Amino acid sequence: MPISQRIEAAIGAALAHASGAGAPRLLAGSLGHAVLPGGARIRPTILMSVARACGEDRPALSDAAAAALELIHCASLVHDDLPCFDDADTRRGKPSVHRAYSEPLAVLAGDSLIVLAFDVLTRAGEEDAGRALRLMGLLARQTGMPHGICAGQGWESEAKIDLAAYHRAKTGALFVAATQMGAVAAGHEPEPWRDLGALIGEAFQVADDLRPDDGALYDQLIEIDLDQLKPLGKPVGQDDLHGRPNAVAELGVEGAVARLSDILAGAIASIPSCPGEAALAAMVRAQAERIVPKLPARIRV
Amino acid sequence: MPISQRIEAAIGAALAHASGAGAPRLLAGSLGHAVLPGGARIRPTILMSVARACGEDRPALSDAAAAALELIHCASLVHDDLPCFDDADTRRGKPSVHRAYSEPLAVLAGDSLIVLAFDVLTRAGEEDAGRALRLMGLLARQTGMPHGICAGQGWESEAKIDLAAYHRAKTGALFVAATQMGAVAAGHEPEPWRDLGALIGEAFQVADDLRPDDGALYDQLIEIDLDQLKPLGKPVGQDDLHGRPNAVAELGVEGAVARLSDILAGAIASIPSCPGEAALAAMVRAQAERIVPKLPARIRV
Repeated sequence: MPISQRIEAAIGAALAHASGAGAPRLLAGSLGHAVLPGGARIRPTILMSVARACGEDRPALSDAAAAALELIHCASLVHDDLPCFDDADTRRGKPSVHRAYSEPLAVLAGDSLIVLAFDVLTRAGEEDAGRALRLMGLLARQTGMPHGICAGQGWESEAKIDLAAYHRAKTGALFVAATQMGAVAAGHEPEPWRDLGALIGEAFQVADDLRPDDGALYDQLIEIDLDQLKPLGKPVGQDDLHGRPNAVAELGVEGAVARLSDILAGAIASIPSCPGEAALAAMVRAQAERIVPKLPARIRV
Repeated sequence: MPISQRIEAAIGAALAHASGAGAPRLLAGSLGHAVLPGGARIRPTILMSVARACGEDRPALSDAAAAALELIHCASLVHDDLPCFDDADTRRGKPSVHRAYSEPLAVLAGDSLIVLAFDVLTRAGEEDAGRALRLMGLLARQTGMPHGICAGQGWESEAKIDLAAYHRAKTGALFVAATQMGAVAAGHEPEPWRDLGALIGEAFQVADDLRPDDGALYDQLIEIDLDQLKPLGKPVGQDDLHGRPNAVAELGVEGAVARLSDILAGAIASIPSCPGEAALAAMVRAQAERIVPKLPARIRV
């Protein structure tokens, strides 16, 4: 089965469990609204690709890990969209959860999705409790405090931001989770896979700075055309308020594109030796081409 | 070490981990604000008491389970206090987290505490992954959808409430988690311990209906004096809006006290056979006396 189908099947099974008999209907509906249809499912795709490259021997564990990671990502989007954060009216082309349902239900949907992520892994852990436990540990570390995405969002409330910590936590954490969980699901050690995740996270950060200022979704980067790029990439918002360095502002569009290319080359070079190393490199290269397709001469990955 | 000290030590260790080097300071502070000083720590106390009654052979697992359960409870209080739910200015005699810090930090504090609960259990699982995994499964089930406390809160957004499901999820779930996790931490099966948790949850529900209408905290019931009781126990609020049956309104004060007494007697009778059965029965009896100390003649537990 293609990776994308496996991911949707695993997410669908998790949702069906959470929305089963006896569940309050509106909250159940809000979970589906938050998760389906998905964005590019980039994080679980990376996770699955790493698991396959590592010679995936327990597909049920990779499926669960991929679903869990995407559920955490969706939970973070639901809460980030809340009025007290981005106050976003839309997400993935439809109303945000708090607009479609209500603010209380959006808070509860995010909470429920976080719990569901861990629940999925506990249920998949029956055949290998040790591996499931390591997966949950990695997921918790990259989600919560002190270094996960909650911490990343938390930095935005600080008067003085540790920018390196902020970027690592806010953008990088779930990509590190993706590569490390993919390795662990297949019985490999997580540590050698940290760099790949961190570099993919950095690449997405630069790609985000390069994205056209048209409300295109961070998570659904498809094509970037140089002509559409604005010098500062994003409207004045939280990032600018906090003086977050922007690759485009710092290096110019071409400089940022060159930086993106370098990061992706570094990502491919960082792939640890494993049975499916070549195929994984090809996958990262394909993602890279997807991010900056109009600049073939500059992409040296 | 007394149970209460073990609980505080385990919670303190979890907080220290989450607030460690590199954490954003305000979010770290909000976690401490949400969790310390605690309320009565009733849920982890029940958990520890059941683990001891079951001949606790892995104290590190009971400690982690107790901390995890209390962290989930505290997370639920932080989110329930948010403006979109109860809009509570105070909690446990000090400002609620969103008043003391901010609404974004309160959302993130709740999220971080949920993740921390699972993180604590993954870290304690090194010596017995299987048992840790079962503990996480029980915690997830009683916290998320479709039947945990998230579902309980979700029922309040429904036009038509399944009252039995609402009560089981909103009040009962974490008490069932307490007894079942205590048993599992000590290597026993969880199922025989469900009734004890469910009945203690019901008792708290009735005690809540009986509490004086003076803002006394649900979680810090100390003494209830008949003279202080008002016929309807609670101010008009969410409960009344949804027509939740109130034991005092239904049975009168004396009837509700008799009902509470019956439930607690049932709880004690439900205790499964285990090495520390007598001590556990004494603990539940002591809690019962704490809840309705001024009515000795009616307490037949």
